[in-house]
Amino acid sequence: MRTGIATVCLSGTLKEKMQACAIAGFDGIEIFEQDLVTSPHSPEDVRKMAADLGLGLDLYQPFRDFDGVTPDLLKANLRRADAKFKLMSRLGMDTILVCSNVATATIDDDELRASQLAELAGLAGDHGVKVAYEALAWGKYVNDYEHAYRLVEMVDHPNLGTCLDSFHILSRDWDTAPIEDINAEKIFFVQVADAPKLSMDVLSWSRHYRVFPGEGQFELAKFMGHVVRAGYTGPVSLEVFNDVFRQSDTERTAVDAMRSLIWLEEQSAKWLASTSTDAAAGNGSGSRRRYPMELATLPKVNEPAGFNFAEVKADDTAQLEKLLGQLGFGFEGRHRTKDVQLWTMGQARVIINEQAASHSEPAIAALGFDVDSPVIASARAQQLKAPVVARKVQADEEVFQGISAPDSTEIFLCQGSPDGTAAWTHEFGEGLERSAAPQNAVIDHVNLAQPWQHFDEAVLFYTSALALEPQPFAEVPSPSGLVRSQVMETSNGAVRLVLNLAPAQQAQAARKTYQEHIAFAVDDLVATARDARDRGLEFLQIPANYYEDLDARFDLEPGFLATLKELNLLYDRDANGEFLHFYTATVGSVFFEMVERRGNYDGYGAPNAPVRHAVQYDSLHRV
Amino acid sequence: MRTGIATVCLSGTLKEKMQACAIAGFDGIEIFEQDLVTSPHSPEDVRKMAADLGLGLDLYQPFRDFDGVTPDLLKANLRRADAKFKLMSRLGMDTILVCSNVATATIDDDELRASQLAELAGLAGDHGVKVAYEALAWGKYVNDYEHAYRLVEMVDHPNLGTCLDSFHILSRDWDTAPIEDINAEKIFFVQVADAPKLSMDVLSWSRHYRVFPGEGQFELAKFMGHVVRAGYTGPVSLEVFNDVFRQSDTERTAVDAMRSLIWLEEQSAKWLASTSTDAAAGNGSGSRRRYPMELATLPKVNEPAGFNFAEVKADDTAQLEKLLGQLGFGFEGRHRTKDVQLWTMGQARVIINEQAASHSEPAIAALGFDVDSPVIASARAQQLKAPVVARKVQADEEVFQGISAPDSTEIFLCQGSPDGTAAWTHEFGEGLERSAAPQNAVIDHVNLAQPWQHFDEAVLFYTSALALEPQPFAEVPSPSGLVRSQVMETSNGAVRLVLNLAPAQQAQAARKTYQEHIAFAVDDLVATARDARDRGLEFLQIPANYYEDLDARFDLEPGFLATLKELNLLYDRDANGEFLHFYTATVGSVFFEMVERRGNYDGYGAPNAPVRHAVQYDSLHRV
Repeated sequence: MRTGIATVCLSGTLKEKMQACAIAGFDGIEIFEQDLVTSPHSPEDVRKMAADLGLGLDLYQPFRDFDGVTPDLLKANLRRADAKFKLMSRLGMDTILVCSNVATATIDDDELRASQLAELAGLAGDHGVKVAYEALAWGKYVNDYEHAYRLVEMVDHPNLGTCLDSFHILSRDWDTAPIEDINAEKIFFVQVADAPKLSMDVLSWSRHYRVFPGEGQFELAKFMGHVVRAGYTGPVSLEVFNDVFRQSDTERTAVDAMRSLIWLEEQSAKWLASTSTDAAAGNGSGSRRRYPMELATLPKVNEPAGFNFAEVKADDTAQLEKLLGQLGFGFEGRHRTKDVQLWTMGQARVIINEQAASHSEPAIAALGFDVDSPVIASARAQQLKAPVVARKVQADEEVFQGISAPDSTEIFLCQGSPDGTAAWTHEFGEGLERSAAPQNAVIDHVNLAQPWQHFDEAVLFYTSALALEPQPFAEVPSPSGLVRSQVMETSNGAVRLVLNLAPAQQAQAARKTYQEHIAFAVDDLVATARDARDRGLEFLQIPANYYEDLDARFDLEPGFLATLKELNLLYDRDANGEFLHFYTATVGSVFFEMVERRGNYDGYGAPNAPVRHAVQYDSLHRV
Repeated sequence: MRTGIATVCLSGTLKEKMQACAIAGFDGIEIFEQDLVTSPHSPEDVRKMAADLGLGLDLYQPFRDFDGVTPDLLKANLRRADAKFKLMSRLGMDTILVCSNVATATIDDDELRASQLAELAGLAGDHGVKVAYEALAWGKYVNDYEHAYRLVEMVDHPNLGTCLDSFHILSRDWDTAPIEDINAEKIFFVQVADAPKLSMDVLSWSRHYRVFPGEGQFELAKFMGHVVRAGYTGPVSLEVFNDVFRQSDTERTAVDAMRSLIWLEEQSAKWLASTSTDAAAGNGSGSRRRYPMELATLPKVNEPAGFNFAEVKADDTAQLEKLLGQLGFGFEGRHRTKDVQLWTMGQARVIINEQAASHSEPAIAALGFDVDSPVIASARAQQLKAPVVARKVQADEEVFQGISAPDSTEIFLCQGSPDGTAAWTHEFGEGLERSAAPQNAVIDHVNLAQPWQHFDEAVLFYTSALALEPQPFAEVPSPSGLVRSQVMETSNGAVRLVLNLAPAQQAQAARKTYQEHIAFAVDDLVATARDARDRGLEFLQIPANYYEDLDARFDLEPGFLATLKELNLLYDRDANGEFLHFYTATVGSVFFEMVERRGNYDGYGAPNAPVRHAVQYDSLHRV
């Protein structure tokens, strides 16, 4: 699959964008007109830069408001087109995107449109240019791709074809199956964009909220599958207007973009292999070979089986040790060669890393996931352009495959075991006498604060590299604004990751307000809480008003309510079961949560999140 | 008019919110349930805090999903209501908001709803509580205010009335005239919110994009006029869910909120006076006296007649002096007692203030506006809670009435003169020989960068205090993101202010990237540019690609195009006329623009703004 990206997806100048696209590994780019018009570089300079960077200049775009106009306007439009065709020749480009008219069209007549497009195609032919005509979702008269293609067929000129854009097709819910019937020679270009499903006017949606494939909710693999079946072999190019990407680091966004295409390529192959046409042909996974477009594959991974460990890091680790001890974790000793400690409670393993920069406050540094094959999972992540994290290892120590998540959390791909144990724990506490089997616990979920620039990138990262599934997002009120909360989890809930996007004010403030946490699940939360209290744990203090409201909502048994209140426990209930949980005070940017899931409760106590935020805000502001 | 505000409008804890509301001068507040539930303060504490602050506790809200339910659910809902009524008694509150059911209603039957609401009213009566039933715009069965009122009439119980919320009514485009027919005794509460006209689902619109009156596009004065005519005399209370306000400084947002109600009160009185019912009664401006609700008035001002001056400030003013000199401004001398200089070009007056903090870069510091009466305008602004700016004056010097705009620019209200001169200029350049009459010029517009937290506030400030009219906003692409651009102007265009909201990345970066400018209009831009070039002015360099595109778009006469290119002039044309302009290089955070308006061109060269942003970005990043 030939990969491409429109320069409008990225921040910066044309030169910065081109360099970032080359670094990210794109085959070609679409030049957005405004990027050229505002550039100090001549068309010849741009052509040379592209050649030096090994980037194809695949599409000049867009040419707006051409068709369905009065004769006077047609003349002016042809003059304008002629100027652009000459410019393209200087750039060494041969394909231009012409969008269906949204503004100046006054005549709704396919015959007229076809004759005007024929004139354009003729002029394009004189310049050796191919015109890719695309139906914009909000085109005045032409707004669906089949209509655009009918016009291309009516004109029947070698220099006129169509451009298929997933946004314009999927935002209008057009059926994508008929794509397969389009003559592949007439598909001059394919643009892809994903988007969250929003109910707003399609123009605003398109201009601000598009995201890269895998970051939204469109069925892009299916769209691409139809394109591949049609026999298309040209560029598959990202055209994503997104307010955040336009502000973010150019190179980083380009890498995120490239990751989305690599992932889309794999998903498209999977969709092709899984759909009935191929299945009926009995070709199994090799079926994609029948199509002219070659789709690359990635090393395959299953979703992780569980958390292997969580790692917290600090210059002074005393507070972390105290908290874990009070929660009931046992100290399993120090590593034989590194300045790290292991604390466990059943299968919940927490590493305390003492190798932090001086004065750095406690923070979540790394997460380990149990996977079938760390090497295969790491190969997949690296092919998806995840940065590798290297850790020093000595002879006889387990080598961890590590990658860096968008928020810089280190992700380690660990060898899972059938009984949930981890072999590397033997590297800790040599000669130390272990305490008797403590209460059982597992890591239930981890909540990571995400910088606003990298939220969508994080969703794609965990989806593509770790096979986690994004759930519908929630918004939680806090005293400093709404917190966007995105759960990523495995189908069985064994791994649950919550990505929180803090309000801008918090994001700008010190790291301290940017809190993250690790939650552990136990079988008997009330007993755990009592033990912790007896060990002197500082609980997050829940207001009395909360318990009155809880009672008004749930009509709880008075003794149970008293216990909740006595122990600062929070409570939730839904049709599937019950949820009890408590939080510790925060140290640095980290706090811990203990939870008990009763029945099939599958949530995170969302109604209680505002209480947690308010109390944490209050304690922070009182200091 | 009794003023109120819901605590959900503001950031912070309940206590912080209550204090901010008292400081801003609100009569009462609505307590949003979550703010109480998450508060460490008991209901009795909250009651005492409110009493101490002189704040009424006017509404407890909201009670959700009561009506149209099965008998089982009704029982649970009544139990929950009973708990809340008891809580209200501890708070000393007597009115609760009950919203029409959006989630749990399963029976669409007005008789049933009425009987269930009657049960609720009976229970409320036992506790001395009044229930204000409100139709949410997205209520499952009840979503218009007339329906809600019909139910109230059916129940006919002294403890059941209705709540009118402008958002729920105007977002659905319900006719507001029938409000006048509602029995005033049955209107228990009125909530007001404004909003920009967005085409998105009404729930998202409501939860994220509401703004304070005067900051959006709803016809709120008319809505309030009908409410006043109905005979309502209770609180008029803001309920504004806004993602930005929830993150902003609590006290400042509360003041902005209060300003919006003061302004709304005046606008409502105006609407009442202007509408035919009253006009027919021949009561003129005194007509509002016929209504039970007393509407306060403000000192009246007309829109400003023009800019009186613009002031730039720096520690080292050499660069500013050089730029103005090169543009053709004449030095009119120093002030007789202050460290400021006056530079003029016709009626365009620029003050260079040397009293800046050490090392501070050149920046726009103040703007003067010509008004009919500075004292009346200042009184109005101060009643609208604009902070006063005091400047030292000596005997015999003109006293400027100054207020501070939301972005801290100082706004001076100056005495206009019929011939556009300013009396205070005599305080400058005593004994200095003036140069011969220079070319004529006026300040055409001023472009101010706004912090993201104060954008809506700025719109209301200039609307209410300075009688400028907001125009439809535009979004301009720049290499570091989209720039939101909001023009505020007088009806004749004599005063034009452009408020620019920079992308977050810029806002976080150094002030240097946060550029602002002053534009001067001249009669012959080409001559002005040639003279400036001869004086060595450093123009913003416009890329050659721009002129090629210009030619493709406008088919310009080759000689004219060559002149534009030679002088780095930008060009735009529309049905009304033509626009020529150029920019200077930036010093500190300021640059200047010279414009020529031909015909009735009324814009700002919007198609050229991306070019300006790109070149400025490029020169900044190359340094």
